[in-house]
Amino acid sequence: MTVHPPQNPTGVLSSHRATLAELGERAVVERLVLPRLQSRNSLGDVIGDDCALTEPPGPDEVVVSTIDPCPRPVVFDFREPDYLSYGWLTAVINLSDLAAVGATPTGLLVSTVMPGDMTVHAYDRFLQGLAEACRTWSCPVLGGNIKDGPEFTATAAATGRVRADRVLRRTGAAPGDLLCVVGEPGLFWAAVLRALYRPDVPRLTAADAAALEAALTRPVARVPEGIRLAATGAVSCCTDASDGLGAALDELARVNGLDAVVDSAALLPGPAARKVAAALGVDPRALALSWGDWELVCGIAPGRLAAVRAALAPIPVHAVGEFRPTAGDGRLLLGEDGRARPVADFGSRRFDARSSFTHGLEPYAELLVHGELYDTGVADRQ
Amino acid sequence: MTVHPPQNPTGVLSSHRATLAELGERAVVERLVLPRLQSRNSLGDVIGDDCALTEPPGPDEVVVSTIDPCPRPVVFDFREPDYLSYGWLTAVINLSDLAAVGATPTGLLVSTVMPGDMTVHAYDRFLQGLAEACRTWSCPVLGGNIKDGPEFTATAAATGRVRADRVLRRTGAAPGDLLCVVGEPGLFWAAVLRALYRPDVPRLTAADAAALEAALTRPVARVPEGIRLAATGAVSCCTDASDGLGAALDELARVNGLDAVVDSAALLPGPAARKVAAALGVDPRALALSWGDWELVCGIAPGRLAAVRAALAPIPVHAVGEFRPTAGDGRLLLGEDGRARPVADFGSRRFDARSSFTHGLEPYAELLVHGELYDTGVADRQ
Repeated sequence: MTVHPPQNPTGVLSSHRATLAELGERAVVERLVLPRLQSRNSLGDVIGDDCALTEPPGPDEVVVSTIDPCPRPVVFDFREPDYLSYGWLTAVINLSDLAAVGATPTGLLVSTVMPGDMTVHAYDRFLQGLAEACRTWSCPVLGGNIKDGPEFTATAAATGRVRADRVLRRTGAAPGDLLCVVGEPGLFWAAVLRALYRPDVPRLTAADAAALEAALTRPVARVPEGIRLAATGAVSCCTDASDGLGAALDELARVNGLDAVVDSAALLPGPAARKVAAALGVDPRALALSWGDWELVCGIAPGRLAAVRAALAPIPVHAVGEFRPTAGDGRLLLGEDGRARPVADFGSRRFDARSSFTHGLEPYAELLVHGELYDTGVADRQ
Repeated sequence: MTVHPPQNPTGVLSSHRATLAELGERAVVERLVLPRLQSRNSLGDVIGDDCALTEPPGPDEVVVSTIDPCPRPVVFDFREPDYLSYGWLTAVINLSDLAAVGATPTGLLVSTVMPGDMTVHAYDRFLQGLAEACRTWSCPVLGGNIKDGPEFTATAAATGRVRADRVLRRTGAAPGDLLCVVGEPGLFWAAVLRALYRPDVPRLTAADAAALEAALTRPVARVPEGIRLAATGAVSCCTDASDGLGAALDELARVNGLDAVVDSAALLPGPAARKVAAALGVDPRALALSWGDWELVCGIAPGRLAAVRAALAPIPVHAVGEFRPTAGDGRLLLGEDGRARPVADFGSRRFDARSSFTHGLEPYAELLVHGELYDTGVADRQ
C-alpha cells in the first residue's frame, strides 16, 4: 500500500473539533493510521494485505499469542480524557501477557471501534500512545481493523516468540519456592486515591509524584524482565498481575495446588504509595494487592534467587513469601505474627459489583479505604 | 489448567433464563468456555497460561496474523437472535483473512465482552458456533479473554502459516490477468431481501433454500481454496470479499494501479440468488457485488487458469473479467455492450450513512432494490 504523508488541504486535521466521520474510512487509514504506525520488515510493508506477515521464530522457539480488550482507562473518570493513555494501555495489557511467558514481542494487531463523532485529534492521540508503547518495548504494530460503532473500544492481540524449553508457565511451583515480584506494586491506586480524596501528602518528592503520574497514564509492561527471567531457567511458575497482585498470587496458589504465603511486612509498596497510604489512613498492603500496576509474579527455588537477581539487575526482584503445602484448595495467605491468614479479595473480578470498569471507581475505592485486609469470613490456618 | 466437566448442581445451566452474572467469571470459564473450546497440542493444554503456545511454522514459512471485530449478525435484525451464528461468524471473518493470503490456520484467539444479564444459554450458543466453525476449518481455539460490559461484542485474532514464496498478496497483478472469483456471490443479500420483502419466488428448490439459509447463518470461509490457490503459484493478487465483491474488485484495481473490468454477463450469481432477484425485480448483479458472502477474488494469468481450475476442482473458479491499464486511478468497471462503465459503490463502508452495522438494514436494502447499478456521476471509459 502506498503511504501518503499526512496532508491537510482542507484544514480538517488542524481543528481539534474535526471528527472521524468528516474524514471517512480511507482517509482515517491513510492520513492518521499509516503515518503513525506504518512499518516495514524484511517481508515488505507490514500493513496493507489481508494478514500481517512476520518472520518465523527460530527452530527451537514457539509462537505465543494473546488477545485483550482494553478497559477504558480509570483516569478518564476524573480527568479530561487524553486518548494517548488509552493507546498506551492497549499495548501494555497485551505486552504484559507476553512478558508473563518470557516472550520477545513480534507484533501487535489492533482493532478499534470508533463513533463517527470522535475527534480526529482524540483518535490520533490514541495512535500516538499505541506507537510510543510499541516503540518502548520494540514491538511492531502489524495491522488491525477500524470500524464505526456507538462507543470507542480497542482490542489488541500480540504475538511473540520464546524458546520452547524456557516458556514461563503458571504451573510448576514446588513447596518452598520463593514468591517473587518484579515491578513496583501499589502505585496505581495510590495515584487514584490521591486524585479522588486530595489528601495532604507530606514529603512527596518530585520522583514520587512522577511515579504516581506514570502509573496513571503510562504503566509499565515488564517485557525485558520477562525475557531475562525466562533465560535464567530458574522460574518455576509465572503470571502477570493483570487482575491485581493479590489475584495473581491467589491464582498461582490455586493452579499449583499450594498455598501462597506472603510475609505481611514484605508486601509494603515503595515510598510514593506508602506516603499516600499514610496520608489517607489506608493499609499500604491493600494498595499493593490491588490491580492497575503490571508486575510479574513468579516462583523461584530459594537456591536460585541470587542468580535471578543478578540476571535482572538493576531491576529489583522482591521476595515476598513462599509456596507451602495447602490444607485446602491452595490460596493466598498473609503471614503475620506467626499466623497465615486468608486475604480479602482485591482482584478485578468480572461480573462483580466491585468491577470499576462496569460500575465506576467508587466501589473499589471504598473497598481500599474502608475494607478489611483479611478475609474475616474464613478460618485462619496456622 | 484442570478441566472439570460441566456440572450443574444448582440447575443454573439448565434454565434458558439463567444469566452469566449468576455464574460469575470463573464458572463461565470452567463450565462454559473450557468444555466447548478446550484443546491440546504437542505443547500441552492450549488454554490456561497468559499466552497461547503454538508450534513454529516450517523454516521456509512465515507467520501471518489478522484481527477483526465481529459485527452483530444482520440476521439478528429480523429473527430471534441465535448466538450460534454470532460465534460462527466471529471465526469466519478472521479465517477468511487467512484464506486470502493462502495460509493454513494455526489458531484463533477470541475476546468477548458480555453483559451480566446475557443468558448462559445465549453465550453457550456463541461458543458452540465458534467451536463448530473452527472444527470445520481445522483451526484450534487457542484462548482469549472475557470481560463484562454494557453490550455483547466479540473480536477475534487468527494466526496461520504459509510458504514465504507463496503468500497471496493484494498487489502483483499485470494487465491482461484474469479476474477470478472463488465462491458463490449474491446469496447473502438475496436471503436478506427475501426475508424482508417475502416475495413469491417460483421454482425455489430445497437446495436453493438451504443455500440461502446457510448464507444467513453459516457463511463459508474459503480456507482450503486459499491454501490450494497459494500452492499453484499462479495467483498474481488476491483478497477476500469481506467488504463486498464490488469493493474487493475495486480495491484490487486501486492498489494495483489497473482497472478491473468485469464482464457484466459473467457477474450473474447462482440460481438461488437469481430467482430471488427476479421475484423482486432487482438486478442480480447488484446482489453479486454486495457484501455478506466470503469469496476469494484474485488475478490469474490467462495461461494459468486451467491449472488453477484443476487444482481447485470441484470448487469452481469463475473468470469474471480482466485487469486493464487504467486511464485514471484504477477502479472497478462493468463491461457491457462494448463499454466499460464505473459501478456504483456496493461496499460496506465505515463512517457511511449506508453502513448497516451502524444504521440497520434499510439503507442498504433500499440501495439494492432501488439504486442504480452504474455510477451515473462518472463519465464512462471506452
